[in-house]
Amino acid sequence: MNRIKALVEYEGTRYSGFQRQPRGLTIEGELEAAICKLTGERVKVLAAGRTDAGVHALGQVIAFDTESPIPPERFAPALNSVLPSDIRVLKSEKAKEGFHPRYQARAKAYRYLIYRQEEGRTFYRNLAYYYPQPLDLPAMAKAARYMEGTHDFMAFCASGSGVRNYVRTVFEVSINEKPPFLQIDVCGDGFLYNMVRIMVGTLLEVGRKRLAPEEVEQILLSRCRQRAGPTVPACGLYLKRVFY
Amino acid sequence: MNRIKALVEYEGTRYSGFQRQPRGLTIEGELEAAICKLTGERVKVLAAGRTDAGVHALGQVIAFDTESPIPPERFAPALNSVLPSDIRVLKSEKAKEGFHPRYQARAKAYRYLIYRQEEGRTFYRNLAYYYPQPLDLPAMAKAARYMEGTHDFMAFCASGSGVRNYVRTVFEVSINEKPPFLQIDVCGDGFLYNMVRIMVGTLLEVGRKRLAPEEVEQILLSRCRQRAGPTVPACGLYLKRVFY
Repeated sequence: MNRIKALVEYEGTRYSGFQRQPRGLTIEGELEAAICKLTGERVKVLAAGRTDAGVHALGQVIAFDTESPIPPERFAPALNSVLPSDIRVLKSEKAKEGFHPRYQARAKAYRYLIYRQEEGRTFYRNLAYYYPQPLDLPAMAKAARYMEGTHDFMAFCASGSGVRNYVRTVFEVSINEKPPFLQIDVCGDGFLYNMVRIMVGTLLEVGRKRLAPEEVEQILLSRCRQRAGPTVPACGLYLKRVFY
Repeated sequence: MNRIKALVEYEGTRYSGFQRQPRGLTIEGELEAAICKLTGERVKVLAAGRTDAGVHALGQVIAFDTESPIPPERFAPALNSVLPSDIRVLKSEKAKEGFHPRYQARAKAYRYLIYRQEEGRTFYRNLAYYYPQPLDLPAMAKAARYMEGTHDFMAFCASGSGVRNYVRTVFEVSINEKPPFLQIDVCGDGFLYNMVRIMVGTLLEVGRKRLAPEEVEQILLSRCRQRAGPTVPACGLYLKRVFY
């Protein structure tokens, strides 16, 4: 038996998220159906991050077990021949013994993409958050510094997540203007439910001068979701890379 | 009665082209339905360019007549409130007396968008032509020079177009590398059926060294469609701007 590790890119627009659901299309469901088509095996696909409905991936990492004689690196083109066009396997290889894409992930990088101009927004309606309002970028950069480090991120976690430990380490929050885009890249050792989207929503509030950069510190200490900014839409979020 | 002129952006993926068809969704059909919803009037929408199935527009120009009291510049937001999200009206205004968006167009600019890398191609599958092969860009630029000017473009016209005069003037063909994209911009006084897509297909043949740049001159003189390159896919083509 081989454990296969693969790097997957997908546009999440049509899907109810990564994880199998009682109803609705899922990335997991499509991947498992594709593997079954190729190998005849009913496998369980493990993923580094269970992205939500509408969230995209540039570098999701998955793993599955197979008895198939298909060489590990040939799974990528073989799966692409049967997958829908909004899911692509960029690479496949034999995983190390006992590899688990989620438990062994040391860090994850997410990108949040914002579209800043009216012209062309039609083409990015599912791929970025349209937000043309003027933003104080230096203030946002200052606020981002308060998010970096090891903190209790309970104020940046949607309710109903069921976790007990809200402490996470955010290595870096970087804000880059690439007109007509604004890219917010967040890298950390782990993320709570909706954490990146609430962080971005809070940074935008700072950009609009409705929050001062320094208030991020108090928001973290408050552990109160209501103090942080709104959850920005799923369509701007990309799981960019997983580090092992 | 007011004649309204409007600037329209759309993603052509879901549509059978601009022009109304016996079956299938069309941009014209959606625009006319939206106008009818707002005004109760059954109007005919005129357009500068009748884009084909899957072709996009960054700056299509349309016109229609209305008795509605809606102020001309308010049609843009009003139409956007009832149009599907892949069609956006960027601007609307009162047109000059007797304005016709096609007959009065002095020039049109098209962009052809090529996506050159594997990573991220999933997101551009309907918005650009995926073409990762190495290309000789200086040779393509040289070939582009032969396309500029006033020529008989019969070799660059798909059959069945029904026109008699194949002479058109191409003002400029420019090729710009913007990694991971390659943009080919073509501006001219008018275009034959599939002309831009055959021009781009021919430039790519030059880029692959299957045609010499100088051969473009002979292809034009031959007036023979078989001598030119293939018609590249609709998904990379954008009607960018119409000049009056």
